[in-house]
Amino acid sequence: MKAARYHDRGDIRIEDVPAPEATPGTVLIDVAWCGICGTDLHEYLDGPIFVPPAGHPHPISGEAAPVTLGHEMSGTVAALGAGVTDLQIGEHVVVEPYIIRDDVPADPGTEYQLSPDMNFIGLAGRGGGLSERIAVERRWVHPVGDLPLDQAALIEPLSVGHHAFVRSGARSGDVALVGGGGPIGLLTAAICKAEGLTVILSEVSAARKAMATRTGVADHVLDPTEVDVPSEVRALTGGRGADVGFECAGVDVVLDTLLDAVRPGAAIVNVSIWGHRPVVDLEKLVVKEIDLRGTIAYANDHAATIELVRSGKLDLAPFITGRIALDDLIEQGFDQLIHHNEDHVKILVRP
Amino acid sequence: MKAARYHDRGDIRIEDVPAPEATPGTVLIDVAWCGICGTDLHEYLDGPIFVPPAGHPHPISGEAAPVTLGHEMSGTVAALGAGVTDLQIGEHVVVEPYIIRDDVPADPGTEYQLSPDMNFIGLAGRGGGLSERIAVERRWVHPVGDLPLDQAALIEPLSVGHHAFVRSGARSGDVALVGGGGPIGLLTAAICKAEGLTVILSEVSAARKAMATRTGVADHVLDPTEVDVPSEVRALTGGRGADVGFECAGVDVVLDTLLDAVRPGAAIVNVSIWGHRPVVDLEKLVVKEIDLRGTIAYANDHAATIELVRSGKLDLAPFITGRIALDDLIEQGFDQLIHHNEDHVKILVRP
Ligand SMILES: NC(=O)c1ccc[n+]([C@@H]2O[C@H](COP(=O)([O-])OP(=O)(O)OC[C@H]3O[C@@H](n4cnc5c(N)ncnc54)[C@H](O)[C@@H]3O)[C@@H](O)[C@H]2O)c1
Ligand SMILES: NC(=O)c1ccc[n+]([C@@H]2O[C@H](COP(=O)([O-])OP(=O)(O)OC[C@H]3O[C@@H](n4cnc5c(N)ncnc54)[C@H](O)[C@@H]3O)[C@@H](O)[C@H]2O)c1
Repeated sequence: MKAARYHDRGDIRIEDVPAPEATPGTVLIDVAWCGICGTDLHEYLDGPIFVPPAGHPHPISGEAAPVTLGHEMSGTVAALGAGVTDLQIGEHVVVEPYIIRDDVPADPGTEYQLSPDMNFIGLAGRGGGLSERIAVERRWVHPVGDLPLDQAALIEPLSVGHHAFVRSGARSGDVALVGGGGPIGLLTAAICKAEGLTVILSEVSAARKAMATRTGVADHVLDPTEVDVPSEVRALTGGRGADVGFECAGVDVVLDTLLDAVRPGAAIVNVSIWGHRPVVDLEKLVVKEIDLRGTIAYANDHAATIELVRSGKLDLAPFITGRIALDDLIEQGFDQLIHHNEDHVKILVRP
Repeated sequence: MKAARYHDRGDIRIEDVPAPEATPGTVLIDVAWCGICGTDLHEYLDGPIFVPPAGHPHPISGEAAPVTLGHEMSGTVAALGAGVTDLQIGEHVVVEPYIIRDDVPADPGTEYQLSPDMNFIGLAGRGGGLSERIAVERRWVHPVGDLPLDQAALIEPLSVGHHAFVRSGARSGDVALVGGGGPIGLLTAAICKAEGLTVILSEVSAARKAMATRTGVADHVLDPTEVDVPSEVRALTGGRGADVGFECAGVDVVLDTLLDAVRPGAAIVNVSIWGHRPVVDLEKLVVKEIDLRGTIAYANDHAATIELVRSGKLDLAPFITGRIALDDLIEQGFDQLIHHNEDHVKILVRP
């Protein structure tokens, strides 16, 4: 079967690889759609980062480059491995793409995202969504019912937003300030909106401001080059400040703005994975008793995320900004994101 | 009566001021002891910071420099203002030195430390502990029973440590890593120890390492110039890392060390009031889902703090490293702290 394989920085090849089988405990999935993630782009331009380089196999998967890429996938169940009895052939599913040690408990509530050597399917082995088929442990397969499969491919990044929302402790009626309106900021805003929050989004790019307005994920879109964001937020909240903040830009000044614009006692969730050590106005964190909380990926979020979309509280369709074939992955996928990133939220690949 | 009055940076004078009266709702206190705080020193060397400069009266107290200094005070009740019926003349008390707007509710649980224009008695007006007498609203006066009045003067900084502990969410049996063993770090460590935690303290100064060992507040004292603190902490915790961290140094590398040395999912309480914007290794905060929590002063902490000391779980006596008269405040107080800070935890002044 065809698969996009990461060999090294700048070297992704569409190759023929053996098709996987439904081994015991796994679900064989015909991939319908797979999104291209900022992380994939990062591996392509600056990696290997999550990908284990050739000669350095991942301690859990035992694999190293070349590996199949793609971790934002949806598809239909093609076959069930021995012992898997609670799914049907043809059922629509998504994958929570974890590679986790076998001894990490699977009970709900377990923080498996923080377990040692955690990594991702489609980055550190075990196949990937940028291929025709994938076999995935039952534990990481989530049925999506009648959710259209193109939208279902966005459940993975949306779960990142859902986990950030859970980490924030925010509740319906709260006011959220989201700093940065890229795919992650927009989807985090969408979750907040669906959960009944008032959302203020801060963004500098015209295309992304337009997207935020068009998708209705933000009640107010502020541009820090045009207004003083903390003053605006205070004006919008009766002088109080936002109840919760989300850093989704990875830019020092965005975090400082959040520290300024939230109310005393607020939580700020740091979603960005920083490529540098930011300079941070921690004095504000101290005197306002702010909680700055890290969030990584998702854990026990998929069911709730899927339900938010299935119930109609959140429409993922407008976030799909491109659909391409696997053979066009580099030219119409990666190159588009490199040169026209701001015009896109999610490009889906049909393997 | 005699009082130490802050006029301006480098200008603190022992002056005669009118003695206060027990006005309605207040308690008149004969001050027994008042500690010198790092904040007082900071005002002397770099201020005015908390002190409202001459001509800029504080919005709640209505006062500006010169103001009486001192906010770490103990004493005996000398007189009760009209309406105060639940204290006895001669009773031992301490002051929770807040200046808070009248409309902030006094109910337990109220986060009055975060209320607008909050400031402190002994910095922004309403008298101070570095004077013979002070009249304080009943709300901020806490009886200490048979607690010796010298130790009672340390209840205020100890309550800072207690509040930091509460903010951490730590529980008996947890392992705490305290970064910096100045007065605040040592007293935070003392609270953690009294609350049943295992305490690891990181400190570079020989005098302070000795103090930490002598007072028994730390189970392990580590020197980052001698050992790799995160590796040591992991070795002491079966590879896991500390459950909770306290930044009490105000030094970038100390915070980064805490981010490295705590376990995934841990809380780090930022106690230091940074004089600069630190560079912070936030990527660790993200991938380990650490909570970095600010803490300011105390709120609803005094009763629990007093009880910890009265019950004998925590001995404050060893932290008293000097006793001086009010007339010697500059020469034997401030100058000692400027030149021999590391040899001291708390110098008490007898007005
Ligand atoms: N924690 C996790 O599990 C997780 C998962 C996925 C992605 N991420 C991280 O989330 C971050 C965002 O991802 P993305 O794909 O949306 O990135 P992106 O680069 O597409 O989006 C960042 C956005 O911030 C905007 N921005 C830049 N400067 C700004 C400023 N001063 N004010 C307001 N907005 C500003 C940019 O215009 C851009 O739209 C990245 O750091 C990524 O690594 C984290
Ligand atoms: N949040 C609050 O409410 C509150 C209240 C009072 C004080 N504070 C702040 O707490 C902080 C500590 O106060 P303090 O009076 O104890 O200060 P301090 O300066 O006396 O103590 C800091 C200690 O850190 C140690 N240190 C420096 N570099 C180190 C390193 N690399 N590793 C380990 N230790 C190192 C120093 O040797 C010193 O003993 C200050 O920033 C102060 O402003 C906060």
